Amino acid sequence: MLIRDLPTPHLVLDRRKLEHNLARMRGRASELGVRLRPHGKTAKSAEVVRRAVGDGPVMVTVSTLREAGYFAENGIRDIVHANCIAPNRLPEAAALLRDGVNLAITTDSPAVAAEIVRAGREFGVRFAVMIEVDVGEHRGGVAAESDALLATARTLHDGGMEVRGVLAHAGHTYGCTDAAAVAVIAEAERAGAVRAAQRVREAGIPCREVSVGSTPGALFAKHLNGVTEFRPGVYMFMDLFQVGVGCCGIGEIALTVLGTVINHRPDEGTAHIDAGALALSKDRSTSAQPVDRGFGLVTDVFGLPLPGLSVEAVHQEHGRLAGAGGVPFEILPIGSRVRVLPNHVCMTAAMYDRYAVVDGTEKGDEQPVEAFWDRVNGW
Amino acid sequence: MLIRDLPTPHLVLDRRKLEHNLARMRGRASELGVRLRPHGKTAKSAEVVRRAVGDGPVMVTVSTLREAGYFAENGIRDIVHANCIAPNRLPEAAALLRDGVNLAITTDSPAVAAEIVRAGREFGVRFAVMIEVDVGEHRGGVAAESDALLATARTLHDGGMEVRGVLAHAGHTYGCTDAAAVAVIAEAERAGAVRAAQRVREAGIPCREVSVGSTPGALFAKHLNGVTEFRPGVYMFMDLFQVGVGCCGIGEIALTVLGTVINHRPDEGTAHIDAGALALSKDRSTSAQPVDRGFGLVTDVFGLPLPGLSVEAVHQEHGRLAGAGGVPFEILPIGSRVRVLPNHVCMTAAMYDRYAVVDGTEKGDEQPVEAFWDRVNGW
Repeated sequence: MLIRDLPTPHLVLDRRKLEHNLARMRGRASELGVRLRPHGKTAKSAEVVRRAVGDGPVMVTVSTLREAGYFAENGIRDIVHANCIAPNRLPEAAALLRDGVNLAITTDSPAVAAEIVRAGREFGVRFAVMIEVDVGEHRGGVAAESDALLATARTLHDGGMEVRGVLAHAGHTYGCTDAAAVAVIAEAERAGAVRAAQRVREAGIPCREVSVGSTPGALFAKHLNGVTEFRPGVYMFMDLFQVGVGCCGIGEIALTVLGTVINHRPDEGTAHIDAGALALSKDRSTSAQPVDRGFGLVTDVFGLPLPGLSVEAVHQEHGRLAGAGGVPFEILPIGSRVRVLPNHVCMTAAMYDRYAVVDGTEKGDEQPVEAFWDRVNGW
Repeated sequence: MLIRDLPTPHLVLDRRKLEHNLARMRGRASELGVRLRPHGKTAKSAEVVRRAVGDGPVMVTVSTLREAGYFAENGIRDIVHANCIAPNRLPEAAALLRDGVNLAITTDSPAVAAEIVRAGREFGVRFAVMIEVDVGEHRGGVAAESDALLATARTLHDGGMEVRGVLAHAGHTYGCTDAAAVAVIAEAERAGAVRAAQRVREAGIPCREVSVGSTPGALFAKHLNGVTEFRPGVYMFMDLFQVGVGCCGIGEIALTVLGTVINHRPDEGTAHIDAGALALSKDRSTSAQPVDRGFGLVTDVFGLPLPGLSVEAVHQEHGRLAGAGGVPFEILPIGSRVRVLPNHVCMTAAMYDRYAVVDGTEKGDEQPVEAFWDRVNGW
């Protein structure tokens, strides 16, 4: 099968760019002296995560319990579920533990810690728990210096559960547009997580892991002393938002959406493709960055940008192509393929159940599809 | 199973509100003297569409070929695919025809019409084709008075294909905020579609169907003389955007996202739920309306709005609750459930593979889940 035989819209994953991105982050793990526990929330694919860990320990971070079950079924059984768990999902987490999965769950609350203790007793399992630490984003987490940190740890420990460690995510690195600014936040993240672990340990409670991570922080942290593992995820594919943060160049974005030109509107200088709000997502996060990428930049089927051309508007199944000089109709006839670079790849990929993998050499729509890799969605 | 036993996030469909909305639109079809061909792009569910048609003819509109295959498998075999088809999907459309499905496809281009003729011959089928007419939105469609309309019809007809009819969608009704403004656009849609059909017929080409429709237009058109069928979809569930257009009240929104409070942030007056960008979508279309609903309004588990409380921000799996008076922590303890009214339900529902159906009487989290109805996603 060749790219031109793919039904559109379809995800196309450039394996060479993927491997470049994966190797880069393994290099960072090595430089920083931390374990890489890649976050599976972006790729949601066992094939991708296996390549991400390379020769290192096989482990993953997840954002949903459905991901946890999927990775476990696919042989990736050392799992941290890094979002504060809703108590109603504890029975499923217990079932994974009973199946022998090495799953750690996360909370930031003494109240949920008490629920975890109760569920652990009810289901006959010893939950391993990461305590989320707020390092400045104020989304989840307890402050490193708070009473709530120790109350959570104490509730778990005294209830017979394992405090596996502490976990921080400095999501506010996404608001940066250069490496220096990211490095400042990454240092606050590191210091907060290390301090929280120190306080738990000083309270006499074992606390093995100190886990941090976002893609920008992982790339630009000066050092991660005291940290045991990091959890970047979006780096595998990269996207236009990460370009805006300074994490990569446009040429390093590994995932694109293949679409087909379905009409020309010479009266408006626009054209439409069959990839719209569902195929691209309605994420507009680049609108807050210095360079707004619309709903994604448009490349030809080789993956080479068509200068100035972007998806300017979307409806459910329509994307409107527009650019400063108008759409070049002669090189994009109706029926021709384009590839769209995503704004925020975690959102864009989420509507698809598979990747078409190409080797990334430039042969236009003659490129063979090497494989289809599945992905898991939902909760 | 009760609502409180559902894993979160989860879609909850209120059957009584659904049936109210479905009956309302059947009433409009009857008043207007047109067939109701409900658009399946919102619900993507055979159970919902079967209820939508009631005792009327069993038919559906779809936005993807995957929907077409799904509805056909589920016994709904009179189908209009109402988006201009990408030529690469013609083999699949032909396969459905060969399986006996009464499928009509859509185009707005003589170039694609020629591809349809070629594919029809190659696969030994006679495609039935709707020609899309632009009635002012300038997304898809040829102008009613254009040469391209007749060129498309002629290419299809002379090539042995069936010109089933003409089809218009006045998506710009979504920019209105009152019934009178919608009615003006709906009349332009009707008149444009009727005129286009007249021109095709005057050219000696049969053109049976005249199809229009959006939810606002279907609700507020003064008459639809000359139209044979209409294709509203979002009316089944309604959403906050449709409230802003004036199509319904908040109490008529039938679909909500059930989420769980996973933390409190008393320092900020906020809380987080386990329903974020994927569970709610990043659709912000109400931001262009007089009343901006954030990422959705929050109700308690009974479905009663918590005054002033909305989802103010989302991350992939987190939604931040905020409101003018702060989050009422005492009535939303950690672990409690809320339901979120969606901004744009087509986007919100798209990440889920099923609906939990409740009967809509008010018993809070004791409400029994009557059924799970599946839905189809992807392409």
